[in-house]
Amino acid sequence: SSKDVAKPSGRVFAPYAIFKGRAALSVEPVLPTFTKVEHGNLRIDRRGSVMMTFMPASGERKYDWQKRQLFALSPTEVGSLISMGSHDSSEFFHDPSMKSSNAGQVRKSLSIKPLAEGNGYFITLTVVNTILNTNDRFVVPVTTAEFTVLKTAFSFALPHIMGWDKLTGQAGTAAE
Amino acid sequence: SSKDVAKPSGRVFAPYAIFKGRAALSVEPVLPTFTKVEHGNLRIDRRGSVMMTFMPASGERKYDWQKRQLFALSPTEVGSLISMGSHDSSEFFHDPSMKSSNAGQVRKSLSIKPLAEGNGYFITLTVVNTILNTNDRFVVPVTTAEFTVLKTAFSFALPHIMGWDKLTGQAGTAAE
Amino acid sequence: SSKDVAKPSGRVFAPYAIFKGRAALSVEPVLPTFTKVEHGNLRIDRRGSVMMTFMPASGERKYDWQKRQLFALSPTEVGSLISMGSHDSSEFFHDPSMKSSNAGQVRKSLSIKPLAEGNGYFITLTVVNTILNTNDRFVVPVTTAEFTVLKTAFSFALPHIMGWDKLTGQAGTAAE
Amino acid sequence: SSKDVAKPSGRVFAPYAIFKGRAALSVEPVLPTFTKVEHGNLRIDRRGSVMMTFMPASGERKYDWQKRQLFALSPTEVGSLISMGSHDSSEFFHDPSMKSSNAGQVRKSLSIKPLAEGNGYFITLTVVNTILNTNDRFVVPVTTAEFTVLKTAFSFALPHIMGWDKLTGQAGTAAE
Repeated sequence: SSKDVAKPSGRVFAPYAIFKGRAALSVEPVLPTFTKVEHGNLRIDRRGSVMMTFMPASGERKYDWQKRQLFALSPTEVGSLISMGSHDSSEFFHDPSMKSSNAGQVRKSLSIKPLAEGNGYFITLTVVNTILNTNDRFVVPVTTAEFTVLKTAFSFALPHIMGWDKLTGQAGTAAE
Repeated sequence: SSKDVAKPSGRVFAPYAIFKGRAALSVEPVLPTFTKVEHGNLRIDRRGSVMMTFMPASGERKYDWQKRQLFALSPTEVGSLISMGSHDSSEFFHDPSMKSSNAGQVRKSLSIKPLAEGNGYFITLTVVNTILNTNDRFVVPVTTAEFTVLKTAFSFALPHIMGWDKLTGQAGTAAE
Repeated sequence: SSKDVAKPSGRVFAPYAIFKGRAALSVEPVLPTFTKVEHGNLRIDRRGSVMMTFMPASGERKYDWQKRQLFALSPTEVGSLISMGSHDSSEFFHDPSMKSSNAGQVRKSLSIKPLAEGNGYFITLTVVNTILNTNDRFVVPVTTAEFTVLKTAFSFALPHIMGWDKLTGQAGTAAE
Repeated sequence: SSKDVAKPSGRVFAPYAIFKGRAALSVEPVLPTFTKVEHGNLRIDRRGSVMMTFMPASGERKYDWQKRQLFALSPTEVGSLISMGSHDSSEFFHDPSMKSSNAGQVRKSLSIKPLAEGNGYFITLTVVNTILNTNDRFVVPVTTAEFTVLKTAFSFALPHIMGWDKLTGQAGTAAE
């Protein structure tokens, strides 16, 4: 099998970034990869995600890219975010080394909490690394307008990170 | 006339699967087929659907694909599902042999019922086969996040299973 | 200038039809046409629409295509339909000969009225022809599921009948 | 680096226009531009927008294009508009010369205010030019149907002006 066969062309970088006083949040979809299977067909190999990149502020309108931390939202986590009402909360937990011998060494949690007035959210990423003995925390307040951009763009991206935009060559099968 | 002319290329498999304790549910769109008609035009031949595949659990994190049962949602049934509020129910009945001499031998019913707390649904497929004298039942609890993925992906898929994504070559006609 | 240059390929027919006891309703988008202007650019020439075709029943599961009547929803009328809540009404009036010497000879009105229980709508087309001295009336009850298909498919179609799906070759201009 | 490499083909003009008694409003997306970076990849260079063009009425069904004023909605401003409920207001302020020596010479403000009955909005653009000593004001009342067209078309356009429709060639990276 050969990976990433679907489109060998170059990547396009078009992050949507929200710059705030203490940290910045940048989001961008990551598409799934496909594997060739029998009869020239393709099967989804690794699911896509929406990658969130957090950077701490390092001065006025400056952010330290070296100290960034990532959090990749799965399709179901994207579904959770886009279904949030203006007074709802969400929290997701990731372990980048899950199911390996390093499990538990790094723990990430992403929390989305509504502002008291219902006019936006606090998006907070916490990364605890028990090997490096570090504890990073990023807080980005987002307005309703910015959250609407996230929801609309994530809704657009969801079928793409699921690979459903590639289904247009599929012939029908018998009705059930 | 020649069938499936629209895209002769290979199929792409990208199911969205929800794995739960007693059963798994996997969904995937099935595109319509087209027939060539006069003047090189195309007419929709067999409508598309969203195929739901249910598999019973056969051990921890294992599911028995041999014992799977299918249920193909029509465009109107997709419309019913995506319009459901958090306290609504739906139920659909299919007979795979409808209008043939085998009508009534197999009866399928798909039920979607809200959880008491409004934070998800039970999706249940029942298949009664009076020839084999079998009665299969699959119950998959889905969270609000998972149901939002279904609704968003089904809304994306709906124009495609209707064949409306192929209309871009169409010239306008006189206003009425 | 040359018309319909955007896509010279054949048409694709993929109506969504609702068959009821007294009449059937079939809907399908009609794309805009474009005219070549200076520098190889294109300008929208005639806006698109969503064409509604009504046919009276002529027997069990039979409909008389010869007696069909058409009603073409403009982008703004599509906007009106897709913003309807479950208890809202809409009514649109068309004169196919508006601004010509035949104005007023044929009057069409499309009415969408909610069912008392809020679980669907009556869609009614009335066509009064003062020349032929005819008065045709079609009534199609649609369920919430069918109306959701109409809303979802019309929302998908709206940017296409506006010509906004063709804007992807457009270079940016100075910010204002 | 070379600009606007993504699609060298001609522009397509497909504005959606709302003509009212005192002024007209025409809207159209403006796509982002991209710059080639290393490895044949592309990076977004200048973000896109939704351009709003206001023209004063100069007679019956006539509008003075020479006296037009522009207002380019950013992705976040588009997010603000599409999240508006029927009783919400929005106001945006632009300075076309921001961060230059001419800052403050021209001040634009766009206001969207609900009608008392909740059945539409007043969209008002004010442009104060302290050099020319002019003060232009355009008021366009829009119906719920027209505003629904704006919201639906802007939601469609949002991923395109963000450049997310170009991400389909992107290979996945390691999960985080």
